[in-house]
Amino acid sequence: MMQGRIEQALQAYMDADPSAPLLRESMAYSLLDGGKRVRPRLLLLVNAILGGSEETAMPFACALEMVHCYSLIHDDLPAMDDDAMRRGKPSSHIRFGEGNAILAGDGLLTKAGLLLMQQDGHDAAKRAIFEGAYAMVSGQSDDLNETEQNGETLERIHRNKTGALFVAACTAGAYLSDPEKAEEMRVFGETLGLLFQMTDDLLDEAQDRREGKLSYATLYGADETRVFIRDAAERANAILAPYTGEAADTLRELITTLRSRTF
Amino acid sequence: MMQGRIEQALQAYMDADPSAPLLRESMAYSLLDGGKRVRPRLLLLVNAILGGSEETAMPFACALEMVHCYSLIHDDLPAMDDDAMRRGKPSSHIRFGEGNAILAGDGLLTKAGLLLMQQDGHDAAKRAIFEGAYAMVSGQSDDLNETEQNGETLERIHRNKTGALFVAACTAGAYLSDPEKAEEMRVFGETLGLLFQMTDDLLDEAQDRREGKLSYATLYGADETRVFIRDAAERANAILAPYTGEAADTLRELITTLRSRTF
Repeated sequence: MMQGRIEQALQAYMDADPSAPLLRESMAYSLLDGGKRVRPRLLLLVNAILGGSEETAMPFACALEMVHCYSLIHDDLPAMDDDAMRRGKPSSHIRFGEGNAILAGDGLLTKAGLLLMQQDGHDAAKRAIFEGAYAMVSGQSDDLNETEQNGETLERIHRNKTGALFVAACTAGAYLSDPEKAEEMRVFGETLGLLFQMTDDLLDEAQDRREGKLSYATLYGADETRVFIRDAAERANAILAPYTGEAADTLRELITTLRSRTF
Repeated sequence: MMQGRIEQALQAYMDADPSAPLLRESMAYSLLDGGKRVRPRLLLLVNAILGGSEETAMPFACALEMVHCYSLIHDDLPAMDDDAMRRGKPSSHIRFGEGNAILAGDGLLTKAGLLLMQQDGHDAAKRAIFEGAYAMVSGQSDDLNETEQNGETLERIHRNKTGALFVAACTAGAYLSDPEKAEEMRVFGETLGLLFQMTDDLLDEAQDRREGKLSYATLYGADETRVFIRDAAERANAILAPYTGEAADTLRELITTLRSRTF
């Protein structure tokens, strides 16, 4: 149901978008494509367990999803990961051409910034989202240019490339509701980001081994990665232990779902 | 002297930048390359004639220049204008490769947003800059996909692609100092953007004619474009007429300089 409200909000932002027709179409093509919405759900759920209003938090959640979506469009480009498919359909540059895909990504990142700037107050939550977006570009750059295959490199790339938006989701959720919990929620976000990356790496293990790509699974092996995943899930659940109610239960379910992708 | 202070501020932001080494290097390569800084100077000068503080306005001016700089990097990419040179040196994708050029642009746009979000208050000025950035992407999309060669199309593309950042500079300058003048300064920005575009078009006329590119010079001819430029300069100077002092004189000089590029 929360996911349905996120879809509705994203759809409404695109319906009201004043951009040139093809730019609007290409942004909507990638943004409204049935993603799992993990990051905005995380922001709204953290906001909810700390007593925040969903109405206030929704534009922040949508801006975060726009940032995530732009990064996927640019990541799929031939000069980056060169992926022709995304979520079962042609990626943006295959569908609209490279120039338009670059602009669709630029547009979504700019729209995210503008949407945040259009909200009153909550400066710390705005900054948390763009700090995450900025660290993510750094992670992409490391990932594109890194040649060293060791645990330290893997950790740094992951922390920025994937972890930063999970941290942004959880800290922004806290800043919107109970800023004193921001540090606790930063650790929660780091832990969930790690959990997400490691399950992703397990799912991609065969392909990553063929391509010689650095990942938790290729560096440490599947068995040890599963141990890391179990530990991360336990740490995340320990942080949630004091929280009760529907949103906290949904967060616990989200952890189980993320974990069980690989079992 | 104002230009020197802009250079110093941009340099300081890059010196303190925490990004991955190659990302930081590629952003600095394009940002600190001796551009004319027309847009940030315009923001600071409008802010100054309306009694604002340069210290407060400087981060806004730098963010605007970062937005302009990202747009040049992405515009030069092979899938866009495919320009190998920029300001007398290899463009970003020639120097660092396409993937890194895409990330350098993404990084500068994100850094601009983050820098704005790190400033206290002045929400209207922040929004004005990102509204300009958003309209610009729309103009780029129109420019990339447009096939109609008429005055209406030219006007729309120009208004978004070039005009939007000039409007952003002048309205943000007003919001930072005297918000009641924002509408007057919007018209001033539109007029200067037009002046800038038309002189650019005159300079590129021969090349644009060879490539069949729509511009003021190719559509209306050089003589009529010069008449438009004279009219725009007169309208801009009329808006400035009530203002006295050093900043107003510098703005009048800027208009003369922009105009005289083509004479």
